[in-house]
Amino acid sequence: MPQPSPCAPVAARVFSDPERQAVYDVIAHRRDVRNEFLPDAIDPQVLHRILTAAHMAPSVGLSQPWNFILIRDAAQKARVKEAFSQANDEAQAMFPAAKRSAYGALKLEGIEKAPLNIVVTCDRTRGGKVVLGRTHNPEMDLYSSVCAVQNLWLAARAEGVGVGWVSIYHEADLRAILDLPPHVAIIAYLCVGYVDQLYDQPELAARGWARQDPVEQVIMEGGWQSQSHDP
Amino acid sequence: MPQPSPCAPVAARVFSDPERQAVYDVIAHRRDVRNEFLPDAIDPQVLHRILTAAHMAPSVGLSQPWNFILIRDAAQKARVKEAFSQANDEAQAMFPAAKRSAYGALKLEGIEKAPLNIVVTCDRTRGGKVVLGRTHNPEMDLYSSVCAVQNLWLAARAEGVGVGWVSIYHEADLRAILDLPPHVAIIAYLCVGYVDQLYDQPELAARGWARQDPVEQVIMEGGWQSQSHDP
Repeated sequence: MPQPSPCAPVAARVFSDPERQAVYDVIAHRRDVRNEFLPDAIDPQVLHRILTAAHMAPSVGLSQPWNFILIRDAAQKARVKEAFSQANDEAQAMFPAAKRSAYGALKLEGIEKAPLNIVVTCDRTRGGKVVLGRTHNPEMDLYSSVCAVQNLWLAARAEGVGVGWVSIYHEADLRAILDLPPHVAIIAYLCVGYVDQLYDQPELAARGWARQDPVEQVIMEGGWQSQSHDP
Repeated sequence: MPQPSPCAPVAARVFSDPERQAVYDVIAHRRDVRNEFLPDAIDPQVLHRILTAAHMAPSVGLSQPWNFILIRDAAQKARVKEAFSQANDEAQAMFPAAKRSAYGALKLEGIEKAPLNIVVTCDRTRGGKVVLGRTHNPEMDLYSSVCAVQNLWLAARAEGVGVGWVSIYHEADLRAILDLPPHVAIIAYLCVGYVDQLYDQPELAARGWARQDPVEQVIMEGGWQSQSHDP
């Protein structure tokens, strides 16, 4: 048994049934928000709590490779929106003809409607040349930054703040708008604002674009089993 | 205003102060567990709740590209442990000489101690050839699967179940052990088991391997600002 020391584990925080349910509910009620943003500015203390939660994400070798770039300026948001619109036209053209008009009817971003945009990045040099846990899997720092996104998203939901992840843009356009140096990767472009209404299921399911499969379909025992999903 | 319809948003779930605090606490008390696993098998209902939470993660175009492969067999875990040990020796040799013995003293996995291992994968073909939100950023499906990992981790913590993410292995070794087809990527190898003791801060900080920076250091306004982190 470890001796008591600053470096020994202690009794773990136990979560009561209602606390555990709150965690499950925030996971179940999280939505990818595009249109429900209210115009009110985010309270600075709320924003600080949300970003602190993001900053508590797991990171490879405790490298904490993320940054959170806050975008509030209307002109800057307009440039991002323009980059989105150009890429979205290209994306629409890639779908089979039968799906193109359905695609065009979807609202896929809240860049200008959301009062705040947050860019989550990953500094590929953070932590030095050799990072514990990253030597064989160099993409681990990118994944750490994604964990920060998910923490941010869930904390925001608990605060009544909606988040929408925009992924339709040319990387070069966004890099120029944000003045990103080459060693910094863009992980997520997030639209953020208070919400009082949300879809009661993922919006793409509600709109008939895609359907959710039951969890049983994605659980396997011992190794990969061929399944209907296989190409 | 949208008319009431199956496709309209509804009043959003509001989280009370104690519920919100539970969410923040589960984020703050989540640990990357290596040694604190208890031998007890995970209750099947608990495991189902945790995997259902993972399955509720955001996914690009609602593609839900993840699978959860459950590893319980001792012989199979021994093969994974062997793959880890070989890679870990290589990783140790890459650190500067002064850090090598400190590295060697760290326990970096609980593969055999944890009663359950879960491999989270990403099927790169899920959702078809053109996936909404993935045409310009093809790595978005990988990031969706990482969001599932973080949901899993937080749900597990609320259930008194610890999770440790192992990233020290050669991909080819793990692919062979799991019989993965080429179109499926490994996202995370997770060790999973009940815990009643945990470190009160990230273990790598407690052990003096790395330190945590304050969140203020990673927040920027409007674009990238050069900082002390820059190379």
